[in-house]
Amino acid sequence: MTLYLGIDVGATWTRAILIDENLQVFKRLKIRTGVNPLADVAVAVEKWSFDSIGVGSIGPMDLRSGRVVNSPNSPSRQFPLVEPLKKFGKPVVVANDCVAAVWGEYVFKHRVENLVYVTLSTGVGIGAIVNGTLLLGKDGNAHELGHAVIDFRSSRQCGCGGFGHFEAYVGGANIPKWFQELTGEALNDAAEVFKRYRDGDFKARQFIDLWLDALAAGIATVIAAYDPELLIIGGSIGLNNWDIISRDLPIRLKKYLGVRPPAITQASFGDDEVAIGAAALAYRVPESLKKFGYPR
Amino acid sequence: MTLYLGIDVGATWTRAILIDENLQVFKRLKIRTGVNPLADVAVAVEKWSFDSIGVGSIGPMDLRSGRVVNSPNSPSRQFPLVEPLKKFGKPVVVANDCVAAVWGEYVFKHRVENLVYVTLSTGVGIGAIVNGTLLLGKDGNAHELGHAVIDFRSSRQCGCGGFGHFEAYVGGANIPKWFQELTGEALNDAAEVFKRYRDGDFKARQFIDLWLDALAAGIATVIAAYDPELLIIGGSIGLNNWDIISRDLPIRLKKYLGVRPPAITQASFGDDEVAIGAAALAYRVPESLKKFGYPR
Repeated sequence: MTLYLGIDVGATWTRAILIDENLQVFKRLKIRTGVNPLADVAVAVEKWSFDSIGVGSIGPMDLRSGRVVNSPNSPSRQFPLVEPLKKFGKPVVVANDCVAAVWGEYVFKHRVENLVYVTLSTGVGIGAIVNGTLLLGKDGNAHELGHAVIDFRSSRQCGCGGFGHFEAYVGGANIPKWFQELTGEALNDAAEVFKRYRDGDFKARQFIDLWLDALAAGIATVIAAYDPELLIIGGSIGLNNWDIISRDLPIRLKKYLGVRPPAITQASFGDDEVAIGAAALAYRVPESLKKFGYPR
Repeated sequence: MTLYLGIDVGATWTRAILIDENLQVFKRLKIRTGVNPLADVAVAVEKWSFDSIGVGSIGPMDLRSGRVVNSPNSPSRQFPLVEPLKKFGKPVVVANDCVAAVWGEYVFKHRVENLVYVTLSTGVGIGAIVNGTLLLGKDGNAHELGHAVIDFRSSRQCGCGGFGHFEAYVGGANIPKWFQELTGEALNDAAEVFKRYRDGDFKARQFIDLWLDALAAGIATVIAAYDPELLIIGGSIGLNNWDIISRDLPIRLKKYLGVRPPAITQASFGDDEVAIGAAALAYRVPESLKKFGYPR
C-alpha cells in the first residue's frame, strides 16, 4: 500500500493527513502555524510512515526556490517549503493551498477538465484547471484573482498593498472593517455579521446585500478568466454560509455575467480540503509542476 | 514550401494573409465583414494555393460546433467558421481572435511559456498562454477578461449585458459614451478624445486620467489571473496611443498590483496581428485545440 502525507499550511493552523489513494485516513495532525511550519511538521510526523509528501501552503510563493515569500498573513513572512522535509528522503511536491485544493477535487472527486476552486476565508484564494492543465504561471501564482480589482476608484487597500481588490471587500479579515466603515459599528469578526444577518438585523442585511454583489462581481471575473464547467466554493466563510451563497449567488451573477454560468457547488472535503489536495499532488504530480522541477 | 492561409474575421473588416513559416507574405486580402464572412473569403481566395488554414475570429464562439454564437458586434450575430472552408479539402483550425494573436506572438516572436495578449480596440480582448498551454476553457472562451468586473457598483452596461465590465469602461466603442456621461459633450469617436488630450484640453486630460486608472485596474486583474512574464498590448487604441500607455500604465499598475509586474510591450505585427496568429494556429496546432477536434 502506498501512503501519501498531505500537509496544509494555513495562516493560523497547519494540518497534516496520512491517506491512501482511496482516501482512507490513517493519521491526522493539527498544530499552530509557527515561523517555520514545515520544520514543525517534520518533527511531529517523525514516526509516521509514508511514500511521498505533498504541501499546500498559503502564498505567495516562489515555486523555483520552493519558498513562501512575502506572505502578509503568516507568523513569519517567508519560510522554506521543501528543505525541512528533505530528511525523509521521499519525493516532495508543493503548491499554493487553493491550487492543491482544486487538484484534490480534480483527482479524487470531479474529473472535469475545466474546474475552479474559490476559497472564502480570511482571504480569497483561487485554484484553476483549464483544459486539463493546472495553472501555475511564471512563479506559481497564476490564480491570484483574490487580487482582481472589482472597484477601480476604491480607496480600500488589500493586505497585499493594492487597491479595490476582490479580497479587500469579500475576505473574512476585511468584512468587519468594511462593516464598520459603512455603519460605524465595531464587530468582533465576520461570523458576527452573518449571525446578525440571520437574526434579521437591518444593518447586517444591508451589508450582506452589498457583500453579495462584491462576491458575485469577483466570481464573475473568475468565470471570465477561466471559463469553468464547475466552480467549487470552500473556506470557512463559504462553507458556514453556504445556505445564503447557494441561494443568492446564482441570481447576483446574472447582473455581471454575459455568458451562461457554470455549475456551482461546495467543497468536498471540509477541513481536510487543502491537506487532501496536497496529498493529491503527491499521488499524481501535475505536468505543470514537473516543469518547476517537482517532485524534489 | 508549405503555405499557410491566415484569416482574421473582425467586426468591420475581414483580412486574409498567405505566408510561409518565415513570415514571408505572398498574398493579402481585406474585405468588409458580411453576414457569412468565411464564405466570402472562400470565394475571394479560390485561386490561391495553400496547405492549411487558420481562422482567428471575433467571439464568443462555440469551438465544438465551430461557430461564432451571439456576437454583439458583427453584422450577423452567428456564423459558421469551418464549414465554408471545407471545399478546399485542407486542414482548418479556428480560435478567438486574441487567442490567435497570442499564439502568433508565441510561435513567431516571443517564446516564453507565460504570455498574455490584450487588444484595446472597439472592445477589449485577451489571449493567454499559461505554462505553455493555450487557454481555451470549456467552450473556447477562457480569456474573456474584457468582461472582468472592475466596478461592482456600476450602472454602466457592457455590450454583453453585464454591468461594470473592463470593456464597458476601456473599450473604444464605450469611450465616447463614458466621456459624454462625465462632460455632457458628444464626440465622434475614441480617437477624438485622445487627440484632444494631446492638444491639452482640460476635460480630455481629466477623462484620460480616469481611463488610465480603469485600464490599469483591468490589466492588474489580467496579471492576477495568468501571472505572465510578458504582456503584449495591441489593437488600434493600444497601438495608436502606445506613447501614453507605455509611459503611464506601469505607474498606474503600482496602485493595483501587490506583485511584481511583467514586462509590457506592444504587438509585433500591426494590422496583420490576428491574421498572422491565425496562420500560426495552422502552422503549429495548439494541444488544447486538438482536444476540440482541430484541425478539422
